[in-house]
Amino acid sequence: MNIVEIIEKKKNKIELTKEEITFAVNGFLDDSIKDYQMSALLMAICSNSMTDEEIFHLTDAMVKSGDIIDLSTVPGVKIDKHSTGGIGDKVTLVLAPLVASTGVIVPKMSGRGLGFTGGTIDKLESIEGFKVDLTKEEFLEQLKKVNMVVASQTENIALADKKIYALRSVTGTVESIPLIATSIMSKKIASGANKLVIDVKVGNGALMKTQEEARELANIMIKIGKNYNIETICILTDMNQPLGNSIGNGLEVLESIDILTGKGSKEIVEFINTFASLMVSMAKDIS
Amino acid sequence: MNIVEIIEKKKNKIELTKEEITFAVNGFLDDSIKDYQMSALLMAICSNSMTDEEIFHLTDAMVKSGDIIDLSTVPGVKIDKHSTGGIGDKVTLVLAPLVASTGVIVPKMSGRGLGFTGGTIDKLESIEGFKVDLTKEEFLEQLKKVNMVVASQTENIALADKKIYALRSVTGTVESIPLIATSIMSKKIASGANKLVIDVKVGNGALMKTQEEARELANIMIKIGKNYNIETICILTDMNQPLGNSIGNGLEVLESIDILTGKGSKEIVEFINTFASLMVSMAKDIS
Repeated sequence: MNIVEIIEKKKNKIELTKEEITFAVNGFLDDSIKDYQMSALLMAICSNSMTDEEIFHLTDAMVKSGDIIDLSTVPGVKIDKHSTGGIGDKVTLVLAPLVASTGVIVPKMSGRGLGFTGGTIDKLESIEGFKVDLTKEEFLEQLKKVNMVVASQTENIALADKKIYALRSVTGTVESIPLIATSIMSKKIASGANKLVIDVKVGNGALMKTQEEARELANIMIKIGKNYNIETICILTDMNQPLGNSIGNGLEVLESIDILTGKGSKEIVEFINTFASLMVSMAKDIS
Repeated sequence: MNIVEIIEKKKNKIELTKEEITFAVNGFLDDSIKDYQMSALLMAICSNSMTDEEIFHLTDAMVKSGDIIDLSTVPGVKIDKHSTGGIGDKVTLVLAPLVASTGVIVPKMSGRGLGFTGGTIDKLESIEGFKVDLTKEEFLEQLKKVNMVVASQTENIALADKKIYALRSVTGTVESIPLIATSIMSKKIASGANKLVIDVKVGNGALMKTQEEARELANIMIKIGKNYNIETICILTDMNQPLGNSIGNGLEVLESIDILTGKGSKEIVEFINTFASLMVSMAKDIS
């Protein structure tokens, strides 16, 4: 197989095969395909989008490019929650312990801030001494002990996604719904949860500016989840104004504690309750 | 200025300014813009094409990226001829001396083979001892002495084109009419001729497969020429079968000598006479 022919095929709007997509992803990971070739392919994908089949193949190649976490030794339904990122979004800090307290298992690998959005891991690190990097053993142990973990994504999850994402951020190829969907879902699938709730932010403070884009992204992620037998529910939420009252890593941790102790604003409490009740009812389905 | 924003602009089909295009070309040349960024920009251009203004700016940036040959010390009308490349195309070897013998000045910088097409320089090198690399002084001296030169393009002409072309050939971004037009024209403009005849090959043995593509390429090149006050005439010629009787560097030199001594096949003699009479009449216009 030849990467130039694969790029030209995508450029000419011809569907790529599973073999071609896997060849491109693995070749990029082992440096036999150069970054200038991958960036041309990514731009061709931005311009010509991807079919569902291509999206499945790309996700699969990225999932298999790194470790796949096995949570089968932890009993119960494991539900992960993800947000596409917004301003003041401290939902995970409240939602994870709330849901875990009902018996649902919440294995959450979180990321750092992206662009102007804050990352859950950055927020947790504003607590002095908080340890965000857990070994696989520590991760599983804590999950069994307190039903939940919020930890930094391990270095070895979806390695190809990490390398591709770094390239996208410097080549103007971030904004592509198929690429965003495969990036999110490959990490979530490799993280081992049974079910998935995704908060798709919409508005001028989010990656998705319009309802149509957000709905398209949601639909693709749901299809990818189905392909792995991972029930995936997406909720489109407004990001035309910040979520809650505070913005900033430390301030958001303080607000989260307030919310957990019953002192949260009505708006954010309602918001979190929507997600919490959904996750609890999803867990019930197969328990 | 920021290259990622420039790439995103082109990706989103927004016209780039002269400053943005010049920034991208010069930055790529001095390595401040990386090859993976340029390849993403080139793919966005392949997908979204370029406006006439963008094409003029890109050509200009490439012309100015290297030496510009000054032929003003050579009296007379200087007419260059270029072919987009085909199989068995030995036309330059016959046409240049034929036209020069009528008093027209033919300063021709030729290239090497591209893909499956042969290059005039490769063909000349099949003559033992033939010197294709001339200094600027040798070039001018020969032009004054025998009215014509066919020499290898100097290393320093349109430097950005050279670097961009090398990247295009490994990133699936060769087939783009605006990029092909700017690549050809930047070299021709920097080479200093007053007028230009371009043989645009069409067919399954050429870069342009259809009449429409060939006509589009021709129209863009004519516009670029006009922008530099260089009269440019394009002739679309058939490349569904090889030109003349022989294919191969040495064989084509032998056939060229046959044609010059009156032993050429009717078809290729007619072909060359069409170009020759055009070039002679173009020279008359301003003499």
